[in-house]
This record gives sequence, C-alpha cells and structure tokens, in this order.
Amino acid sequence: MYLRDNWYVAALTSELGARPLSRQILGEHVAIFRSESGRVMVLADQCPHRGYPLSLGTVVGELLVCGYHGFTFDSSGTCVAVPGQDRIPSRADVRSYAVVEQGILVWIWMGRGEADPTKLPDTPWLADTEHWSTVSGVAKISASFDLLVDNLLDLSHETFLHNGSIGTPEVATTPIEVEVDEENHVVRVFRHMNAVECPPFYARTTGLHGKIDRWQDIDYTPPGHYLLHARIAPVSQPPLPDGTDDHAFHMKIFYGLTPSSEGKVYDFWALARDFCMGDDEIDRFLEKMQTGVVQEDVDALNILQSRTDERREVSEVSVKIDRGGLAARRMLASMTDAQSTS
Amino acid sequence: MYLRDNWYVAALTSELGARPLSRQILGEHVAIFRSESGRVMVLADQCPHRGYPLSLGTVVGELLVCGYHGFTFDSSGTCVAVPGQDRIPSRADVRSYAVVEQGILVWIWMGRGEADPTKLPDTPWLADTEHWSTVSGVAKISASFDLLVDNLLDLSHETFLHNGSIGTPEVATTPIEVEVDEENHVVRVFRHMNAVECPPFYARTTGLHGKIDRWQDIDYTPPGHYLLHARIAPVSQPPLPDGTDDHAFHMKIFYGLTPSSEGKVYDFWALARDFCMGDDEIDRFLEKMQTGVVQEDVDALNILQSRTDERREVSEVSVKIDRGGLAARRMLASMTDAQSTS
Amino acid sequence: MYLRDNWYVAALTSELGARPLSRQILGEHVAIFRSESGRVMVLADQCPHRGYPLSLGTVVGELLVCGYHGFTFDSSGTCVAVPGQDRIPSRADVRSYAVVEQGILVWIWMGRGEADPTKLPDTPWLADTEHWSTVSGVAKISASFDLLVDNLLDLSHETFLHNGSIGTPEVATTPIEVEVDEENHVVRVFRHMNAVECPPFYARTTGLHGKIDRWQDIDYTPPGHYLLHARIAPVSQPPLPDGTDDHAFHMKIFYGLTPSSEGKVYDFWALARDFCMGDDEIDRFLEKMQTGVVQEDVDALNILQSRTDERREVSEVSVKIDRGGLAARRMLASMTDAQSTS
Repeated sequence: MYLRDNWYVAALTSELGARPLSRQILGEHVAIFRSESGRVMVLADQCPHRGYPLSLGTVVGELLVCGYHGFTFDSSGTCVAVPGQDRIPSRADVRSYAVVEQGILVWIWMGRGEADPTKLPDTPWLADTEHWSTVSGVAKISASFDLLVDNLLDLSHETFLHNGSIGTPEVATTPIEVEVDEENHVVRVFRHMNAVECPPFYARTTGLHGKIDRWQDIDYTPPGHYLLHARIAPVSQPPLPDGTDDHAFHMKIFYGLTPSSEGKVYDFWALARDFCMGDDEIDRFLEKMQTGVVQEDVDALNILQSRTDERREVSEVSVKIDRGGLAARRMLASMTDAQSTS
Repeated sequence: MYLRDNWYVAALTSELGARPLSRQILGEHVAIFRSESGRVMVLADQCPHRGYPLSLGTVVGELLVCGYHGFTFDSSGTCVAVPGQDRIPSRADVRSYAVVEQGILVWIWMGRGEADPTKLPDTPWLADTEHWSTVSGVAKISASFDLLVDNLLDLSHETFLHNGSIGTPEVATTPIEVEVDEENHVVRVFRHMNAVECPPFYARTTGLHGKIDRWQDIDYTPPGHYLLHARIAPVSQPPLPDGTDDHAFHMKIFYGLTPSSEGKVYDFWALARDFCMGDDEIDRFLEKMQTGVVQEDVDALNILQSRTDERREVSEVSVKIDRGGLAARRMLASMTDAQSTS
Repeated sequence: MYLRDNWYVAALTSELGARPLSRQILGEHVAIFRSESGRVMVLADQCPHRGYPLSLGTVVGELLVCGYHGFTFDSSGTCVAVPGQDRIPSRADVRSYAVVEQGILVWIWMGRGEADPTKLPDTPWLADTEHWSTVSGVAKISASFDLLVDNLLDLSHETFLHNGSIGTPEVATTPIEVEVDEENHVVRVFRHMNAVECPPFYARTTGLHGKIDRWQDIDYTPPGHYLLHARIAPVSQPPLPDGTDDHAFHMKIFYGLTPSSEGKVYDFWALARDFCMGDDEIDRFLEKMQTGVVQEDVDALNILQSRTDERREVSEVSVKIDRGGLAARRMLASMTDAQSTS
C-alpha cells in the first residue's frame, strides 16, 4: 500500500525537455512536461480515447496533443480538441496532478484530495546557488521502497559496498545514535567519527588529508524525504558555541525516495556543498563518484530483491547498526496504519 | 478465441529458403518449407517422438527429417522413417495443414475440417507483375489482434503517428464514411480528401506537388484480409463515368493480419502500385518508407498493449473516427459468436 | 523433487578464483570459494543479517566477509564478527556444505544429514595426468534435468544434432544394448559400431582415416554421474582376451549433471584421452569441438523445454533407441519414490 497523501519528487527539472517525460509514480503512469510558457504540468499518462500514453504526444503551447489520434488536453486535463469533429465528448478528460517546482526538483502530490502545501518539504539550498553548488541525478531501482530505506538509514554499509569512494573502516565501527522525533515526524541518526581517515571523496574536494573529523547526521522524513548532513573538518575543531562552523566543509546529501510500482523505486539525489563553489571540475568529480556510489546501491538492492522474491519467508538478524532503519520502518508502518483507518 | 475456419497469411514466399520457417499461428506452432520439387508444405512443428521442433530439421527431397533423432515425415505428415529400426510405430504421424501459394503470399487454412477454397481471398494483382509493381514485408507485433484491427480501420492516426511520411493534417480532419456489407462480409471505410497536401510518400513517387486529390478506400474482410485502395490524382479529376482513371496513380495496400499467440500478431504487408513500374529506386524508397510506417505502428501497439495489460479495466471514449473500427469489432464478435454456437 | 542425499559436481576447480562463485544447486544458492590456505569451502549464499548474497563478499584468510555490512563467517558457517559491536547475536550462523575436491572437480553433498563418503563417485583418471590428458567445461541449460538425461542416454541424436563433429550415419542406425545393474545402481548402454566412418572429432586426434571400429559404452549412475567410454580402433582389432587394448584410442567422456533450480541444470563435462598426451593443440581442438557439441545440446534442450512449457500435456512415441533413457527414468523414479517414503 502506498502512502498517497504526500509529496514525492517526480523529476529533476533538468530531465524536462521538448518531449514529455513518462514516469510511473505510486503505480500511476504520469506524463510530465513543461509548457511553452514554462509551466510544469503533469497529466495521467493515458488518453481516454484508446489508452495511448500521452507522454508520447507533443506539447503545443500550453496543450498536450496525443500522439496517436490527436486528442488534446490543457493543464487541468480538460479535453479541448478531438479529430474529425467539433463536439468534445464528455468523459474525455484526464486527471491532472498538483506539482511544485522547487529549485532543481519537481514535487508531485499523489493524494486523492486537495494538495496539502504544509506537507511540502523545503529544500531552499537547492535554489540558493550563491551559497551552495549542487550536482544531481536519478536512478531507478528494481527493489522495494523498504530496501532503499534500509540502505540509506544504515550507512555502515559504506565501509563494504562503497569502499573505494566514501567508505572507510571507521564508518562501520563507529556507534550511532538514533533519535525519533514523533512530533516533527523525523528519524535522526547521528554518527560522529573523530580523527578518522579521509576517504577519496572528501580528500579530493576539501584538500584535507590524514585524519579528519567526519560527521554524518541523517534527517529522514518519511516517506520520501531524506537528508544527510555531512561535516568534514580538521580534527578537534567542533562548531563554535554560537553555531558558526566556518572552518568545516559541509555537504547536504539529499535523496528523494519515490515508489514507482510494486518492487520499483526512483532514487533521486542532489549533493550540495558549501565549498569549491562553482568549480566545474569538482562538479564532474562529485557527479561521477556519486553516480558510482548510487550504482553500487542499485546493484546491491536489485540482487537483494531478486533473492528475496525467491524466498518463502524472510528472516533477519538485527543488530545495533540497524536501529535507524528499524525506527524508520516503525514510523512508516504507523503512517500506513493511520492511512488505512482514516 | 481464434476464428479458426479461415485462411490466414502464413508467410511471404520470399521468406522460404533452404531451412524450414518456424511460425506460431492461432497458437499452433508450424514448420513451413518448400520441398525440393518446389511445393510449399506445412507440418505441425512438433516431432511426435520427443517434441523437438520439426522446423529445426532438414528438407530432404519431399521429406522433412527431424533435427534431433531423425524421425522423417512426408507432406501429409505421415512418418516414413525412424532411426535404429524398420518398423514405424503407429501414432508417429504429425498434422499437416492445407496451404495455397498465391503470388507472393502463402495462405494457410487453420480450420479443423476440410479447407474451404471459397473462403480464400483473391489477390490477383500480387501475381500480375505486368501491371503492378510490388514491395512487401512482415512485422511481428506484441499486441492483441484487436489493437491492430483498430489501428488499420482508423487512418486518422496517420496525421499524428506517421506525420513524416504519409500523415498530413487533412487525414485527421476529413470525415469518413463507413459501409457495412453484411452479405459479402466486408467493412468499408471511405475518406476522400480533395485539394489537400501531398505527403512525401506520394510526392516522391508520383511527381505530383502542391495540392492533390487523395482517396483512401478500405475493404476489410475479417478476420485477416485488409485492403486499402489509395488514389492520388490531380485536383478535381475524378474517374470517368465508365470507371477509367488513367490520369490517377493507384496503390493497393494489402495487410494480412494473422494472430500468432495470445497478445502476438503478424502484420504482413504488400504495396502494389500501377506507376513507376519496375523502378528499383522507387521500390527501395517505398520499402523503406513503409517499413518505417509499420515500425511506428508496431511501437505504438506494443506500448499500448503493455499498458493495457497493467489495467484492471479498459475504458474508452469513442468518436466519429472510430466508426470503422467499431463496425469491424462488431463483425468479428458476431463471427466469434457464430463459431461458438456452431 | 530433488534427490538430495547425493553428491553433485558443484564447480570445476578452474572456476575458483579470488572472488567467491555463486551457484544455485538443487534450488539452494551457495557461495563457493577457496580460502587463502587453499581449502574449498561452501556456505549458504545468504547473509542472516539482511539476506545479501555472501558470494558478493570478500575472502579474508579463512573467513568470508559479507559485502553489504561486513558480517563475517568461518568455514563452518559460524558468524565470528559483526560491525559496530562486539557481541555476536545467536542465530547469525549460516549453513555450510560438505565438499570434496577430486582432481578438477568439486563435489558437494546436498543431503540434510551427514555426508556419505561411500556414495562419492570416483574419477581417478581426472587426477592421473600421467596417463590421461583432460579438457573440461561447464554449460548451464534452461531445461529440466530429465531432458538432459534423455539427451545423454540416447546418442543416436549425434547423427542429426552433431553431424559436423561427432555424428555419422551409423550412430543412428547401429542398434544398442541396454543393461540395468540394479545392484550397482547403473544403467549401461552399449553401441559397438564396426567398420564405420571416422568422424572429424576422432580423425584429427587419432590420425585414423577411412573405416574404424567405434564403440560407445555408457555407464550412467543416477542422478548426477555419467561416463561414456569411447573406443576408437583399427577395424577388427578388438581388445585382447586379457583386456589389454594398446592399439586402440580411448576417451573417457565424463558428464556431471547437477540440477540448479526448476527447469535449470548445470552440464559439467571433462574429456580425458589416453593419446596425444599433453598436446596443447589437440587440447584446444577438443575443447573447441566439445564446447560446440555441448552448445548444440544446450540450444536443442532450451527450445525443447520452452515448447514443453507451453503444452498442456506431453505425449511421446518411444522406439528402440529410447530404451536407455527409459531405463534411466525408471531408476530415477524409483530413487524418488524411495526418498519420499524414507
């Protein structure tokens, strides 16, 4: 069961070109496109005439024209033209979806009722190009949403799965702290590694070598919004009591987790840094490294899902590193329960 | 349910080479081959010994020898040799199918009883190389038979799906006339476009430019025989009262629609023209254009089927352009009913 | 139902490198690896923590470390390390499998109880490099175990399926003798072809041309152990009364038949010859020829299985050449019965 009354990342704005983009989100096929005036629109990806995907159609001004027989729709999904006749039949409209363009992200409201703006995540740094430089991407994973949540909530896997880039021995050995903020609906996981090895990912970008302090503070706001605050600093130089932390390097590692269909999930990511601002070479380095890291996760989760699919029952042995993931599962389960009984 | 008591195109004669051709028609695997004396034969594609496909065997004279253990069959499907012994076991025969070679087409009778020659479609122009030049091909579509019938009965899709080759705006905007000939068992759809744009497909081949008269007259004889009479002429020069029409260019666009298995269909086509006779360059141009047009249909129907397969229920909104397709569906449905109750 | 209380070939030793090998045997995923001390070990290919395949992990000394979160196991499957904590949870162990390395083969015991060494096939010639030169390989077939047994027990198919390499007309026409040794649990099939054509496979390697005596004596020990004794000799020079046969060329053609999962089977093979000892060029020739022969079987069985899967019922017509295969089926069926009632 999907958690419908939520905003999910539907696309990166960089993915929207001249042709509509076809995505399946929470089991529903949608056509995402930017009209000629620049507005992002999302319609159900199924022409009411014969069912052809509207994402294969053509954007003409503010309208989307079906690529099979030319049924034409406006941003509200209202059918405004039909071939061979002037009368527009009733029942020829399609569903439209509420969307918000926010920096480099397009968020979609998948609820059945009115979109709730108070639930929209806020990611102002992704639009603040003065203070943050950002690279982004998206991968599709053939695994359940839960396996991706598990993966991201327990970063000790970096040591083994990502050991050429962001993983070092200390990620796995450093204990975590977990905080469940029921009121704000956030699972937080803290891992503060002090005087540890600097992995290639950060050595190249920060210029720091030898031992560093490396903090990983996760804010996971279920279902689809994950943010990892990474702090890289010289050893034993914590933030000042007033919160200023100018001698440290910061990265906001955003993931948008969007269920596609049963056993498929989109994994959107955006790395924003407050150093090496506007450095194209560093952009390309981080994009390449992160694309590789995400692909390692994709490969791992794909095979894990295919093995899971073969089993009659799934057994697990949980340990301390799993506390973040288990807290996230509980919060997701209670949201699912709440939806069922509402 | 397949409409069995009918002739279907099984192959183009150009497809028959030294090795048998494997086809699945109306759910039945068949091996089609030409014996050394030149006769086309069709046997069930399953050796009675261990089930190996006979299409992987070898033609020896008038016989087909299984490629696994050498069981050997004549044109009637009778087993005439078995390895390692002289006695031929009873029950070792396979089914043979009635076939007719007609110009460039091989027709197969898929009924359980005697083949009915009165039901065999007649396509004399495909053998009349003096008056008609022909190019042909075949595509396999991963879609239901019904989706292909829908596609071919409503040519307004040319405007949108085939707009680089045969589609112009007027195909979609010109109203059609539909005639259901119950006696002869034909659905006819007429679209006479007068003083309209000449698409690249015809400009290149006829030498006409600017405005033309363009008529599309469809004869669909369910289940598997579709013929589009295309007439391209200078504006306002209709055929003479006695029927002669020498100043016009004609094309007979034949489609053989052959169900393969559930959700798969063969789309045989043959374009015959009464102009540019024997012009190899025009042959190649038309073959390339038509192959492209058919591939656009294949792509559209494949995705349409895959989306349809996901849905619990299919809803449609029909308009005037759909009258030909709806008439065809009704005729197919009544044939299916008749078969069920017979 | 698999015949569990038996030894099967799990791998060729040549397949074991720095990374663990993933195999599915009798439906069970296993990770096969050689520890740094040189010992071959097999563990269940599923980490008890979150189910990740251990075959994607890393061999460290005598241990296998999971590639996802670092759970670590010894040769008995006991978990000896967990990330982020010192305490090892109970229930964190995995199953280990008894294995025997025998020349170029790794045998695995798939029974639930103690491994039975008396059931281990003996293939001393595969380790006797002084008297036998061997080439080997493995193929995976998408067909049932039974289809592969059928294939190997009736070599008359060589004439048709392998006619460019080992098949000649006489294989199909020469009658066989079948012997069922219930006590030793072996099905034997004898085909002694005298004064027959020498196929390319043997002409090139033995130097014999024209007519030869060619004997094919099969010992099949169900379920997984098949041995073909091939004898190639000048015409009318049988072995001496005391059994010496120095003027003949001998080949032991071993097949290890290992069910993988439903409809999948591993086809291990090893050709040992007592002539052209240590000749690299002959090695490469035989390896290439046999790889081609096996691929012909793979292709035939894959298509046979895919056709069989489509059918509602399987009918067969058996003849004399099938007596070996039918005897093998009966022995396999009685083993299956015995297992069910034990």
